[in-house]
Amino acid sequence: MCQLLGMNANVPTDICFSFTGFRQRGGGTDHHADGWGIGFFEDAGCRIFIDTEPSVNSPIAALVSAYPIRSRHVIAHIRKATQGQVRLQNTHPFQREVGGRYWLFAHNGDLKGFTGRSGPTRPVGDTDSEQAFCHLLNAVLAEYPDGRPDEAGLLAVVTQVATEVSRHGTFNFLLSNGDWLIAHCSTQLAWIIRQAPFSVAHLSDEDVSLDFCQHAAAGDRVAVIATAPLTDNEAWTIIAPQTLLLFRAGALVASVSTAADEPAFLPAEPAVASA
Amino acid sequence: MCQLLGMNANVPTDICFSFTGFRQRGGGTDHHADGWGIGFFEDAGCRIFIDTEPSVNSPIAALVSAYPIRSRHVIAHIRKATQGQVRLQNTHPFQREVGGRYWLFAHNGDLKGFTGRSGPTRPVGDTDSEQAFCHLLNAVLAEYPDGRPDEAGLLAVVTQVATEVSRHGTFNFLLSNGDWLIAHCSTQLAWIIRQAPFSVAHLSDEDVSLDFCQHAAAGDRVAVIATAPLTDNEAWTIIAPQTLLLFRAGALVASVSTAADEPAFLPAEPAVASA
Repeated sequence: MCQLLGMNANVPTDICFSFTGFRQRGGGTDHHADGWGIGFFEDAGCRIFIDTEPSVNSPIAALVSAYPIRSRHVIAHIRKATQGQVRLQNTHPFQREVGGRYWLFAHNGDLKGFTGRSGPTRPVGDTDSEQAFCHLLNAVLAEYPDGRPDEAGLLAVVTQVATEVSRHGTFNFLLSNGDWLIAHCSTQLAWIIRQAPFSVAHLSDEDVSLDFCQHAAAGDRVAVIATAPLTDNEAWTIIAPQTLLLFRAGALVASVSTAADEPAFLPAEPAVASA
Repeated sequence: MCQLLGMNANVPTDICFSFTGFRQRGGGTDHHADGWGIGFFEDAGCRIFIDTEPSVNSPIAALVSAYPIRSRHVIAHIRKATQGQVRLQNTHPFQREVGGRYWLFAHNGDLKGFTGRSGPTRPVGDTDSEQAFCHLLNAVLAEYPDGRPDEAGLLAVVTQVATEVSRHGTFNFLLSNGDWLIAHCSTQLAWIIRQAPFSVAHLSDEDVSLDFCQHAAAGDRVAVIATAPLTDNEAWTIIAPQTLLLFRAGALVASVSTAADEPAFLPAEPAVASA
C-alpha cells in the first residue's frame, strides 16, 4: 500500500511543511520506497515531479521540500509497488487532459481482477491504478463528451465508479482538475482544515514545527488530506470507509457514501452534505 | 521566438552538458526569459520539468543541469512569449497521451490566424503552439483511431500537418512519443550526431568543455537538435527550411520536404532518405 497527500486551498499555498513530513514515509519512517510523485496546479497549468528513487533520498524531493511552489490543489503519492514494476510510467500522480483541463489522480490500494472500460484515455504503464484512472475518465467522457460535468454530474459519475471499483479491492484515491479536489476513502484517509485562529503544528514523521500564525493570512483556508495524520498535535478527522469527499477552496462541500450496499446505479440526487 | 533543444539516443544518455549551455539562453546569453521546460522519456514513462522563471536563474533548471537523468528522448524549450501570457499552462513542452503512449511537443515560432481542428485533445492554455499540437494529434487520431500509426503513416500525417500549419507562420517544432523524435525546421534548426570516435566539445554559451571519450561507450550514438548550434567546435548541420526529420536510436532515418509548393495532400510515398 502507498501513502497519499492532498491539499486544497482558497489561496495559493506552499506545501513545503506537509511534504517535509510526508517524504519521510518514502524509505524513512515507513517502507514505501518504490518511487514518489507530486503534482501542483497553478492556474490551469499543472506541474508534476516524479521519481523512481525513494522520496527520503531523492534530490527532486529535496528540491520540492525547499522550493515553495504556491498552489491551490496538490496531489502527492509515495509508492509501495503491488502491481506494475518500479518504473517511471507506473509512478503517481497520473495526468490526462480532459475537456481542456488537466486531471490528476493518485491511488492507494490494490485492485484484483479489474479491467477498465475502453475509451479515449488509455494507460501507459501497467498498474491497476492507472487502469482505474482511465476507467474513471472514460466514464466521465461517456456521460459528458465535452469532458466538463457540472458538480452534481461529476459527483454522480465519480461516486458510481468509486462504488464499482471498490468491489475489486482497496481504492483510496485523490483526484483533481485544478478546480476541486475529490478524496475517496476506501479503507484509510484523514483530513484537516487549517484556518484562523492558526496555531503551531508539529510533524509526526520528523521533529519539525511550524507556526501558521507567521505564514497564513486571516482569510486563508487550507484542507490537507493524508493516508495518516501528518501532525501529532492537531485534530484530524478520520474518514469513514467508503466515503467520497469533495473539497473546494479549502472547504469540504460534499460527502457521499460509496458503500457496496448503496445502489450501484447513478442516484438521481446524490446525498450531499455541506460543511 | 523561442529556443528548442532535442536529443535522441540509442542508449539512455544524460543531457546535462547540452542543457548547461542551453539554459543560458533563457535570460543569460539570450533574452528568452518567459519560462522554460524539459521533458525526459524513461522507458514508456515521461517526466517534465516546467517553470515560469527564466531558466538561467530557475532552481529547477539548476537541478536539471546537475542531476544526470538518463533518457533516450529529450525535448526542451525556452520561451519568448508571442501569444499567451507567461503562465504554467503556456509553458512547453506540452504532453498528451495518445494510443497508450505519451507524446511531447515544443514549438518555436508564431502562427497567425490558426485554429486547430477539433477532436479528442484540446488545449488547456491559450498559445498557438498548444493549438497546433492538439491539431496534430487530432489529425493522427482521425487517420489512426487507435493512436498508433506505423512509421510511414506517422510521417505522412505529420508532414501534411507541418506543411499546412507552416502557411500560418513559423513552425519549428520537436515531437516525440518515446519511440522516435521528429524535428521540423520551418526557419531555423540544426543537428549533430555524436558517435565514435568521440572528441572534446566546447559550449558556445558558457566556457565549459566535455570530453565525450570519458563519458561515452564505443557504440553510443546521440543526435542533438537545437535552434542554434550549442557548441563552437563541432560540425553542426543547418537544416534547410521546410524540412521534417525523423530520428530513431540516435540516427537520422527520414527527411521529408514540407515546402508550400509541395502537394498539400498526403503523398503516397513520402521521400525518405536513410543516413
